[in-house]
Amino acid sequence: MNIDMIRAAATRLKGHVRCTPLLSSPFIDALAGRRVWIKPECLQHTGSFKFRGAWSAISALEPKIRTKGIIGFSSGNHAQGVAMAASRHGVASVIVMPADAPALKIENTKALGAEVVLYDRDTEDRDVIGSALAKERDLTLIRPFDDPNVIAGQGTAGLEIAEQVAVHGVTQADVLVCCGGGGLTSGIALALEANAPGLRVRPVEPEGFDDVTRSLRSGGIERNNATSGNICDAIITPQPGNLTFPIMHRLCGPGLAVTEDEALQAMAHAFLRLKVIAEPGGAVALAAAICRQDQIEGDDVVVMISGGNVDPDLFARCLETLE
Amino acid sequence: MNIDMIRAAATRLKGHVRCTPLLSSPFIDALAGRRVWIKPECLQHTGSFKFRGAWSAISALEPKIRTKGIIGFSSGNHAQGVAMAASRHGVASVIVMPADAPALKIENTKALGAEVVLYDRDTEDRDVIGSALAKERDLTLIRPFDDPNVIAGQGTAGLEIAEQVAVHGVTQADVLVCCGGGGLTSGIALALEANAPGLRVRPVEPEGFDDVTRSLRSGGIERNNATSGNICDAIITPQPGNLTFPIMHRLCGPGLAVTEDEALQAMAHAFLRLKVIAEPGGAVALAAAICRQDQIEGDDVVVMISGGNVDPDLFARCLETLE
Repeated sequence: MNIDMIRAAATRLKGHVRCTPLLSSPFIDALAGRRVWIKPECLQHTGSFKFRGAWSAISALEPKIRTKGIIGFSSGNHAQGVAMAASRHGVASVIVMPADAPALKIENTKALGAEVVLYDRDTEDRDVIGSALAKERDLTLIRPFDDPNVIAGQGTAGLEIAEQVAVHGVTQADVLVCCGGGGLTSGIALALEANAPGLRVRPVEPEGFDDVTRSLRSGGIERNNATSGNICDAIITPQPGNLTFPIMHRLCGPGLAVTEDEALQAMAHAFLRLKVIAEPGGAVALAAAICRQDQIEGDDVVVMISGGNVDPDLFARCLETLE
Repeated sequence: MNIDMIRAAATRLKGHVRCTPLLSSPFIDALAGRRVWIKPECLQHTGSFKFRGAWSAISALEPKIRTKGIIGFSSGNHAQGVAMAASRHGVASVIVMPADAPALKIENTKALGAEVVLYDRDTEDRDVIGSALAKERDLTLIRPFDDPNVIAGQGTAGLEIAEQVAVHGVTQADVLVCCGGGGLTSGIALALEANAPGLRVRPVEPEGFDDVTRSLRSGGIERNNATSGNICDAIITPQPGNLTFPIMHRLCGPGLAVTEDEALQAMAHAFLRLKVIAEPGGAVALAAAICRQDQIEGDDVVVMISGGNVDPDLFARCLETLE
């Protein structure tokens, strides 16, 4: 796993994945007490960065293998990314999703051409279900984060950040990344190590589901006690990945954690000041920039908004924080 | 007023104005019955395309004149554009706004450094108030649309569209533009005439406030009966401009008009499928792409989302259309 794989992924992604813009707002700067540069991956195809990793992994497959079909398992964003990347490659996909995933995500995944298989997040193991189905139907499993080509695809967002912040003269900054299993976090960390070494990645998680933060502190992989019961569902995984954790351990600064209310408030600021939709899990990095200022260093901070797939009724809750 | 002025504006805007991305979604394509390419100017600085025209006009002033200060009058988006462009040039601004403009727009305009003067949309004439203040304080008036440098600034969005759709091989399409006084519409029309002559601009307005559509039909400037009482406030003006109308008459296809409900539904689709915030007036072009398919020609359509400055309670109404 190295920068060359990310650069190769960038070549495969060219013309298929959006280069999302870098946004900013004087209002957000004032809230955060420093300049904030926002990378809105909610504007990516399928509404999250996951399309990058999915395209990277599927495009890297041997055509003979790829045509047999793809399988993925995900709380929703990876699902949509895989479904769309597969169908744009002209191949079938099966997606294993938790039954309690937002209705919108399940619906979208089906509409993007995938067959959806649901499982119970608390009593069933998606790895077991996914592996069994893959074997049975001879499908290639695209893991949500612990796959070198997926990490390489997510890392292309880091290549873009390096280029985009340089335009504004930013060479030193914490880069706050919404973190589940660590695919995006580790990919961006590798890209920045090579292309913008003054930028340091900091994973951001929901309070109570801070496995990565605790793992970085202890130096070994720590698990979450639960994997449901928080609105930031998109970034809750049992533990950091075996591939992603060593990269994060080597390159990342300390993790940060925010509450559900802070995530909702960040969604509201994104609505008001950036005009983009952030889902709760996609808003935790912005929430940390605003609510954990004393834990962040420097005059500039870069913030990833990782996704925007949120049901209307949950989004309405963030608007209520503005009243 | 010609393409050279737009190209000169693009040079002045470089590094100060965002090149907004071109978005698309298979879900929107399905709703519209053709490929839809969306230019989200809600992601522009201050949340609307108006920052382009304001920067263009203010940057074109003689420094000696500019330092005396700027005055603008606007339902809100031009106000914010002028306020931010003025303060980024280090000069003072006064903005004359209707008292019934969305609270958010008034608030933002003040926060961006402008002095705000309110007037009654139904009983007072903003031109008279603006001109008097300009004279009294020796300020330069930046008109919201009927000013060559403002039109040139808005036209830079057209230069970007020409380049961005070419990447996707689109050479023939209707380009639907949310239309008030016609600054954006005429600017884009001029840019496309030069750089993408197969693209034809079509103004889109709220039903009952379709002065431009009627003017294009009759060949002379027609007025609206009222200038308030519609949620698409941002694009309601008494009549097309004296500078903008002849350009639109020469270059535009027939106008389109949509209802308030259709605008709200388009806002909901932008939320769900594009992850951007559209205000009602900024959503009319997308609404026309979805609800007036039979009046549009070709396999592709380009849609401008012109702004995203909407109060939370009004935005919540669009979410209700999804239930």
